[in-house]
Order: sequence, then C-alpha cells, then structure tokens
Amino acid sequence: MNRLERIIPAITWLKEYNRHDMQTDMMASIIVTIMLIPQSLAYAMLAGLPPAVGLYASILPLIAYALFGSSRTLAVGPVAVVSMMTGTAALQFAAPGTPEYLTVTIMLAAISGIFLVLMGLLKLGFLASLLSHPVISGFISASAILIALGQMKHILGVSASGHNLIEMGETLLHNLENTNLATLVLGITAMVALVVLRKHLANWLIKLGLTKPQAQLASKAGPVMVVVVSTLSVALFGLDSIGVKVVGAVPGGFPPLALPTMDFELATSLLPAAVLISIVGFVESVSVAQSFAAKRRQKIDPNQELVGLGAANLSSAFSGGFPVTGGFSRSVVSFDAGAKTPMTGVFTAVLILLTLSFLTGAFYFLPKAVLAATIIVAVVQLIDFKTIVHTWHYSKQDSAALLATLVTVLFVGVEAGIITGVSLSLVLFLWHTSRPHIAVVGRVPGTEHFRNVERFEVETQPNILTVRIDESLYFVNARVLEDRINSLVAERKEITDVILMCTAVNMIDASALESLETIADRLHSVGIKLHLSEVKGPVMDKLKGSALIAHLTGQIFLTQHQAIDTLTHK
Amino acid sequence: MNRLERIIPAITWLKEYNRHDMQTDMMASIIVTIMLIPQSLAYAMLAGLPPAVGLYASILPLIAYALFGSSRTLAVGPVAVVSMMTGTAALQFAAPGTPEYLTVTIMLAAISGIFLVLMGLLKLGFLASLLSHPVISGFISASAILIALGQMKHILGVSASGHNLIEMGETLLHNLENTNLATLVLGITAMVALVVLRKHLANWLIKLGLTKPQAQLASKAGPVMVVVVSTLSVALFGLDSIGVKVVGAVPGGFPPLALPTMDFELATSLLPAAVLISIVGFVESVSVAQSFAAKRRQKIDPNQELVGLGAANLSSAFSGGFPVTGGFSRSVVSFDAGAKTPMTGVFTAVLILLTLSFLTGAFYFLPKAVLAATIIVAVVQLIDFKTIVHTWHYSKQDSAALLATLVTVLFVGVEAGIITGVSLSLVLFLWHTSRPHIAVVGRVPGTEHFRNVERFEVETQPNILTVRIDESLYFVNARVLEDRINSLVAERKEITDVILMCTAVNMIDASALESLETIADRLHSVGIKLHLSEVKGPVMDKLKGSALIAHLTGQIFLTQHQAIDTLTHK
Repeated sequence: MNRLERIIPAITWLKEYNRHDMQTDMMASIIVTIMLIPQSLAYAMLAGLPPAVGLYASILPLIAYALFGSSRTLAVGPVAVVSMMTGTAALQFAAPGTPEYLTVTIMLAAISGIFLVLMGLLKLGFLASLLSHPVISGFISASAILIALGQMKHILGVSASGHNLIEMGETLLHNLENTNLATLVLGITAMVALVVLRKHLANWLIKLGLTKPQAQLASKAGPVMVVVVSTLSVALFGLDSIGVKVVGAVPGGFPPLALPTMDFELATSLLPAAVLISIVGFVESVSVAQSFAAKRRQKIDPNQELVGLGAANLSSAFSGGFPVTGGFSRSVVSFDAGAKTPMTGVFTAVLILLTLSFLTGAFYFLPKAVLAATIIVAVVQLIDFKTIVHTWHYSKQDSAALLATLVTVLFVGVEAGIITGVSLSLVLFLWHTSRPHIAVVGRVPGTEHFRNVERFEVETQPNILTVRIDESLYFVNARVLEDRINSLVAERKEITDVILMCTAVNMIDASALESLETIADRLHSVGIKLHLSEVKGPVMDKLKGSALIAHLTGQIFLTQHQAIDTLTHK
Repeated sequence: MNRLERIIPAITWLKEYNRHDMQTDMMASIIVTIMLIPQSLAYAMLAGLPPAVGLYASILPLIAYALFGSSRTLAVGPVAVVSMMTGTAALQFAAPGTPEYLTVTIMLAAISGIFLVLMGLLKLGFLASLLSHPVISGFISASAILIALGQMKHILGVSASGHNLIEMGETLLHNLENTNLATLVLGITAMVALVVLRKHLANWLIKLGLTKPQAQLASKAGPVMVVVVSTLSVALFGLDSIGVKVVGAVPGGFPPLALPTMDFELATSLLPAAVLISIVGFVESVSVAQSFAAKRRQKIDPNQELVGLGAANLSSAFSGGFPVTGGFSRSVVSFDAGAKTPMTGVFTAVLILLTLSFLTGAFYFLPKAVLAATIIVAVVQLIDFKTIVHTWHYSKQDSAALLATLVTVLFVGVEAGIITGVSLSLVLFLWHTSRPHIAVVGRVPGTEHFRNVERFEVETQPNILTVRIDESLYFVNARVLEDRINSLVAERKEITDVILMCTAVNMIDASALESLETIADRLHSVGIKLHLSEVKGPVMDKLKGSALIAHLTGQIFLTQHQAIDTLTHK
C-alpha cells in the first residue's frame, strides 16, 4: 500500500473495480436512495431545517466518505440522534427558519469536520472509548424519547419546543387544545401503516411470489409507500387547506456550493456542541462499520474513519448541509442489497442529485405529520429497555452510569447527559479501584496453585501470611493495603513472614511504592519479613533500583509455589 | 470502649492518667511552648495577621484536639503551608491589617472546622488519598519556595505581594532599591545564626556536659535564643528608629471569645479555599500522626483525626484565631521531650495563655525580619529535591504529576496547583489502564506456571493461543483487547483455541463484557473456541448468568495448567 492509498483508501478498491461490482452497487444504490430520501427530509426537519437541506447533506458527504472512509459498507448521511443534537445546539444561537439558523448548522458541520479530521490525523480515535456502552445506551434511549416527543407536535399539528422532557411536555400540553384533527388522523394512520408494513410487508411480498431476501429488501420501501400515498391524499383531497402542514416548495437543483462563513467568536461558542456531535456521530458510526467489517472479514481503521467522517462533514458544510455520520439502518439496507464497495455511496449521491434536480415538485404536498411519523417509528426502536434490564442485573455500577445519563439527557439536556455519564463512569471505575479486593490465600492441596482461603479448601502455614491484592497499587488505594496488612498481622501473633502475591498488580506508582516501603519497615521493626511473589515483568522492571528493594527484608520469588517451598524448608 | 469514649477519645487515656505521666507531659510542654511561641508569631505574620493571633490559635485548638483527636503525640497549631494558604485566600477578599481581613481568616477556620468534622462523621477520610505523594511533594516544595520568597520582603524591609512567583518576584525587584540596610543585616544574621545553631548547638551542648538526648532537645531552643538576642539588640540600640520593623504592641490577655460572624455569601465564596486548606492540613497532619503512632504501636483513626482537627479549627475560630493543623517539627519535639499523652497539649495551651497574659510586652521590640528568618530557615528544609529526583527515576508518570503541581503552584497559584496535580494523576492512571500490557504466555517447562513468551523460555502449542491481559477490563480499554486478539489470530492461521488468562483481571464491566461477547462470536464464526482461565472469584460471581457464558464456545478453567492439559489431550 503506497502513501497515496493510505490517504485515500478508495484507490485500493478502485484498482480492482469491475463491471460486475458496478452492477450490484448500482442496484443497491437505488434501494438505498428510496430509503434515504424520506429519511433525509425527515431528519432535516428534526434539525429544524428546511427539508431540502436533508437532501443537500446526502450528496457530497457520500462521495467524500467513499473516498476517505475505511469501511466498505457504511452509508453516511443525516441520522436521527446527530440531527437532534444539531437542532438542540443551533436553537441556542438562532431561531429556526432564519438564515442565521442555517449558518449555525453549516458551521456545526464545518467545525465537526475539522475536529474529526484532526482527531484522525492525531490518531486520537481511541478517545471515543471514553463513551462506555452503558452511557451510549442511556444516551440513545433518552434521545429517542426526546426525539419522539419532539415530533409529536407535527402529529398534533401544534407548536412546541424545548431542550428536555419537561420543557417539551409543558409546551405540548399547553398547545394541546389547538390540535388539528386532520393532521392527527393522518399522522396516526401513517404511524400505524409504517409499523404494520414493517412487520408484515415482507410476508405479503413472499406470498406474492418474491423470494425471502427479495421480499425483505423490497419491504424497506414501506416508508416510501406511506410517503407517496399520503402525499397523493393531501393533493387530491386538498387537506392542506384544512390545516395539514406540508413540506411546500423545495428549491430544486444542485446544492449551493460555498465556503461556510466563519465567524470566529460564534465558532468558539459552537465548539463544545460540535465536539459532542462529532464524538457521538463517530461512536455510532464506527460501531456500525465494525460490525459489518467483521461479517466480511474486513478491517476498520478507527483513525481513518475519523478522517472519512470529517471529510463527509466538511463537504456537507461546503454544500449547505448539516452534520452527518454513518447510519445503522441505511447501512443494513445497503449491505442486504448487495453493495460491494463504497461506489454504492457515489451512485446514491448521483440519484439524490437527480431527485433534487427533477423531482422536488413531488414533495410539495408531502405532509410534515408523515415525516414526523417516520421519525417516531424509527427512533422508538432505539429505546433499549433490554440493555437497561441486563445492565441492572450485571452491574449496579454500570447501571448507575446508564440511568444517570438517561435521566440527565431527559431532564437537563443532551450535553449535560453525556458529560454526566462519562464523568460518573470514570469516577465509579476509580471508586472500584480504591477498594481493592484483598484475599488471604493458601495452596490448593496437591497443586502449585494458590486460592482465597474463604472460597477454597486450601493449606496454609501458621507463620506465613500470603496476601493477594487484586488491583494495581496506586495512590488512591495505597493506604488500604497498609491498613489491611497492619490489621492482619495484629490478629496473628505467630506470623514471621508476609508474602505479597502480585499476580494482579499491573502497576505500582510512586505513592504505592512509598506505602510498600512503610509496610516493609513496620514489619521489620516487629521482626517480620516481607516477601514478594509473582511480580509481573513490567512491574519488576520498574522496581529494580527503587528504594523498596533496599527496604525489603525478604526475597522476591518468581512464583508463589517457590516462595512457600523456600520459606517452609528454611 | 463505650459510646462516649468513641466520641471523646481523651477519656480512654484520662482514665489511666497518673502523676508520672503528668510530670513528663509538663516537662515536654515547656519545651514545646518555647518552640511554639516564635512559630506562632511568625506563622500569623505569614498569614498576614497580627502576631498575637498566632498565640490565640495556639490555645483552645490544642485543648480541643487533646479531647477529640486520636493521636497521642500530634501537636497542633499554626503551620507554615496552611498559614500561607490562609493568607493567599484571605487576600482575595480583604486587605491585610483591616478588621475584615481578620473576619475572613476566622471564617476560614470556622468553615474548615465544620468541613473537617462533617468529613469525619461521614467517614470520608479516605478522600484524602486522592492527593498522591508526588502531588503533595510538588505542592510542599513549591509552597516552601513561595513562602521563602514571600518572607524576603521582611528581610529586605520592603513591601511586596502576589499569589505566585512572578507577581512576588516583580514587586520585590521593583522595591529592591528601598532595601533597609539595618533590617537586611539583622535578617541575614538571624538566618545564619539559626542555621548554625541548628547544625552545631547540640554538639556544643554535649561538650558542655549534657547527654546527647538532652542536648538535642535543648538545641530546639535555638530560635528562641535568636529571638531573645535580636529583640534585646533592637531595644538596646534603638534599631526601630532606623527603619527596622518590630512586632510592636501585642494586646495581652485571654483571646476574645466570640461566635464567628457568618456572612453566608462570603462563606460560599470562601468554601473552595477552606476545603483545600482543610484537606492539605489533614493530609499533612495525618501522615505525621501515623508515623508517630507506628513508632509506639498505637493506632490512628483517620476519621477521628478529621473530627479532632475540625474541633481544633472550630475552637480556633471561636477564639479569634485562624486555620490550624498538626505540625511535623513541633510533634517531633513533643515526642522527643517525652510527651506521653495529649495532656502535653493542654499544658502547652496553659503556658501560652500565661505568656499572652504576662509576657506580651517582651515582644514589642521583636523584629519582623527575625520572624521572617525563622520562617525561611524552617521552610527551605521542606524543598524536597530528593523526592523530585527519585520520582523522576522511578516513574515519568508520577514525575509529570509532581512537576505539574510544582510549576502550577509556583506560577499560577496554590489552588490551581492542587487541582492540576490531582486531575493529572487521575488522568494518567486512567491513561495507563487504557493501554494494558497484553502478553502471549507459555508454560515454564516442568512446572505449572505460565509466563510471557518474550521474557522466558517457555513451551507453547501451535494451535493454542494463550493471552494474558494485565489489567481490569472496562470501557476505556475494552476495544484494545478486541483489536489485539483479532490481529494475533490473523497472524497464526493454525489456531483452534484461544485462552484468555484472567489472573490480573480484577473487574469486567458491562462494556468489556460486550467486547468479550463480540470476541467470542467473531472467533466462533471462524471456527475458533474461546476459553477463560484463572478467573478470580469476585469476577466469576458476576459473570455467572451473563450473556457471555451463552456466547462462550469454549470452557472456563480454574487454572491455566488445567486448560492446557485438557485442550492438548482432547
């Protein structure tokens, strides 16, 4: 792989690209486009933007990702959670519908793009692992609830707004009396239709003679059918004249290419939101990409993914779009439709551009309530009760992080929720390491193995105390070991030797080293020797030459078995 | 031990208190008092307060600590670092010399006292372990430099102020031309005298016929000798009339007992400083107390210590004092002078009260330059180059925390330094755990022990890969294991079994559990079985019933030896 290939991974697969690949990629792109159009319109609306912007964000970004991304399967574009975060952030700086609002969302895409590319070039992809699974799960579930509730205003045909559950709920309840009946009927019908089609369309198609894979793929067109039927209904029955809000005139043609205006002060205020949007988008995207790569024995390079997503966001900003990332459902469709290479994304971009050029008139009568219905039906699936229950059973600590994220996102806001979740996860991990499990161990009879005296039937010697500490020793827990050894030694007067079994000690920092010296000195002053056993290579490398070796009155044994052997036969 | 004794530890030793103890305690208290008087005056000056306040802070707090503290040896009162922190904090809210300034320092003592007592009652003493040894070392060294530099103005007889090295240095240089020659000569003479007396006084006294312990104890009176001689010189030669600043009139008599005025708004602004003062004071004090307790086979209860120090600070606030804590040098003196019980503190308090009542006139001509000299000579010993060098050799990580604290305290400020140091220590620990050491292991021939193939001559089987991960598995490092196993398996096509050796895995969180499930699934899809060995009890307890067990295609072995035995003979 030469240098240019490392920068533009597309070159690798383009070299081997053939007519057959092209045919399957083209077929796949048609199916992805059919799915992407209503999604793009809907997610633009979710971000508080005119629907056309959703289409803008589904052209250049797809091509940019095809060039720079490392996944062969990922389909990028506007996605629900990122669109909501964009809307929430932009609302703080401008009113929806104003040119300033569009400027803010474009800048969010630009900053996000720059940030992602920088992270990628600096190889900082690992930072995304700070978002633990429980935090992501809590965040996604809460976001889904907020998104669904936020879209209820379109189903009811009223206005409502807010950053969290309470604000949204209040404005919604306050405006409930203005509910537009026609809109409500249309919205609920659309939701029911979407759910029913998702559940049964594939079976119906099989009965009509399609094969199972064909039927499953064709059933993804359900949302498009609902969109078409509802648009026609509005147009035919003039529902827009009785209060059903429609998408209206969509400016056609190529998206307006322009360098995003860069107001430095505004950029600085947008930075925190853009960083969070970037990280959440990256985490969502990279986990999708990884699961597909594993299925096809391909590899994902997280840092290259950052560059790919960064390029997608930058090109979104250049073409009047808003933040994008890799989406799960569209990647599944693309994969199932047989997409072989990222060329599928390029073909999809062309098809969306054609739509923008010739078909925007068709969206005039598309009711907003139906777009809201597609959003609600999509995001409700993201509410992940199963993980909440599983996590609760597995670990109260992880559960606390999940629930704290969920509750904070719902009742305070998206950014506060993520920050709370990450901080709490880290604090709980530190808390765990601050209370290490310390076991007195003995030999499993007839073996060279040593186990906790409280869990196994083991042999011990009255004058030898072997303590296994199950944690790296560092400043937060250094004193715990001191206290425990002091009290263990105080309990048993006959002890002449203490062995610290270091199987699970992966690090000893300077504070812990001082604690060990103190322990050695104190034991020495009452005539007890301190030995170490099973010290790991990297830990031993550092201990050599430290003051502890001078303080140590006992020996350092390679294995616990040797230690006991030597000390009992001395 | 009954309930009252648990609240007031003094009852325990008071029950057995006898005439002999009283005699030794009284003797010790005389020596401690002789040492404490110049220290108290000097440290009050360091905190920007009238010298008499230092004596106020050395009466009731000693009695309060004697009642509630758990150490038999600790001598409390004003100490250098805490006094400097008090001065730095108070300067932000009032000008030195004003009644408001005194109000602020009293409030700092009161809030600090309440905070310490609360920490003690809530058993939060362990929180002090967040201050790692390198952070404390960097903090103390930097504080000592700041204190010494801050006192130079008294030696030069000029005015200077500031919160950090640059501010102090600038104002000092700016005023250098106003240096008062008489003050400078007096200050330097005092410093030289203090250093020479500390080094040689004991030897001189031995030559005069004292025993070594007597001589060493009597040599602690060095500072008092310097104080007496310099005071007499000023008085006899009228040095105060040629610009040598003296302590002046000290209001005699009992300290003014009063409830501290509590301005809620001011209290809120003082809270962060008070918390830091409390924690630093507690950490310093508890380590002193612990080292003395170890020497006498006594026990320290950190939470009771918090209550004791809290009570000392509260009583300091009630008697017009400022924050106090346990001091190292005075505790050494008290211990060496044979103090048996905390009654020494009570006797010292009485002696200081007598001084305040009858001897304040003697301090009139005491030159401030000499007090500054005693501070400088005392704190310069705290600059700990040895630890800086040792830490550098032992661990670059700890060294980074030490130097960051040192530099930040010097150039930004005390509070910023501590916060930087603690945050950096925690981040570096997390950073360490995010890049776990992962070793491929094999059997040490003829034993049941398994070691890193890169460090030892070991036996391995071509179709079995055993990976030992030297870290708890949690969200920050979960993906690292996934990646490593993927690439190890990709390198060796003949692998049929992967064993994860979990000797050093002290915890598996929900994110890591998902990673393990993913690893198991991926290996399964290419026909490789995943096994676990040496899983620790507490970890196994949680794994039972988790989804991992369902995903695991291999077995869970108690020992690695069993695993290899079973898999090679299958």
